[in-house]
Amino acid sequence: MKHHLQQHLLFARLTPAQLDRAAQRARLLKLDEGQPLFAQGDPADRFFYVVSGQIKLSRLSPEGNEKVIDIVSAGNTFAEALMFLEGPAYPVNATALVPSELVSIDSRDFAAMLRDSIDTCFLLMGDMSQRLRGLIAEIDNLSLQSGTCRVASYLLKMAPEDEDQFRLDIPKGVMASRLSVKPETFSRILRNLQDSGILSIKGAQVTIHDRDALEDRAEGLT
Amino acid sequence: MKHHLQQHLLFARLTPAQLDRAAQRARLLKLDEGQPLFAQGDPADRFFYVVSGQIKLSRLSPEGNEKVIDIVSAGNTFAEALMFLEGPAYPVNATALVPSELVSIDSRDFAAMLRDSIDTCFLLMGDMSQRLRGLIAEIDNLSLQSGTCRVASYLLKMAPEDEDQFRLDIPKGVMASRLSVKPETFSRILRNLQDSGILSIKGAQVTIHDRDALEDRAEGLT
Repeated sequence: MKHHLQQHLLFARLTPAQLDRAAQRARLLKLDEGQPLFAQGDPADRFFYVVSGQIKLSRLSPEGNEKVIDIVSAGNTFAEALMFLEGPAYPVNATALVPSELVSIDSRDFAAMLRDSIDTCFLLMGDMSQRLRGLIAEIDNLSLQSGTCRVASYLLKMAPEDEDQFRLDIPKGVMASRLSVKPETFSRILRNLQDSGILSIKGAQVTIHDRDALEDRAEGLT
Repeated sequence: MKHHLQQHLLFARLTPAQLDRAAQRARLLKLDEGQPLFAQGDPADRFFYVVSGQIKLSRLSPEGNEKVIDIVSAGNTFAEALMFLEGPAYPVNATALVPSELVSIDSRDFAAMLRDSIDTCFLLMGDMSQRLRGLIAEIDNLSLQSGTCRVASYLLKMAPEDEDQFRLDIPKGVMASRLSVKPETFSRILRNLQDSGILSIKGAQVTIHDRDALEDRAEGLT
């Protein structure tokens, strides 16, 4: 149990005594596919770490349709924010999407333990800050990757089969927005493609120098 | 100044008195393009909120090459994790990539203020937890988007111009890995394409029912 918990940043910085205390109050749960864990409105007295499987968090709309809020996969926790924010009830339903294994932790006890140790809270906030920055960098990176794929696909479609020069009479801003790429990311992508010698752009005139390389970009290969 | 700070989760939950104290000790800085802010090894006594512009965080490799660690854009902070983790020195160089405006905050004073208020720390940890989950969901979503684009581009390249049926004699696992898509994401993408009626797959036999829609997927339109 401790071995599972230590993988997660909420537990990684606990002292051995704190980790023992958390583990003593923790329970290992197994859920079958489709089995509910808690319902919207239930008292939020525990939070969960997903050891394996996937947990669907969902809510019913006023019309009675299910809206999936999140799918939590192995290595992540859920409902821990409620512990910090003292949310009294779960705002969502939680159901296993596939057979899943969870560790369930006593929220009140865990929060009391953190309240006793500002040092642990500081380490936790430090780790969270770093993780946040790492994720933001990953998102930038993925946006660039995804945008490059879309721009390359679009250019390949617009380029005549047997002709490497063509005019693009659509303003760049419109093209960016049509492909759902932020203007600054769009400029960066076009600059990258030109710097790599794949194409050149002069005004509305596009010249493709290396169609294979452009196809590779559309498939995420570089 | 307070108006800028309140946009960020580190400050959003401060009491009015705490925010006043932080703002009193804060300074507004303007940097020109290329102007350095601090160097690797300098004492880490302040952290920063980017109001506008972009700050490059970089390190020199043992060979003397610059390695960019991160580019921090408006609305984000940097060096705040050092405050929590009590890092004594900046581990990177910080330089303005473009003309930039920053708020600089006294780390020791800010940390002392948080140490006096476990309640504020709890609110902050709650917000950070929620933000982390939000970013993880965004990454899942972007990975799916980017993977869909790559898979669609690949299928369009493999499909003969005038023929909607073709064989793909490459195992799915190999195809996923070639396109840098995780196997479970790859299955999800193929299922989506089939459920939308865009194509069907039977063994190695792929039939494209709607080439325009497949092109739209390659361009991120849905």
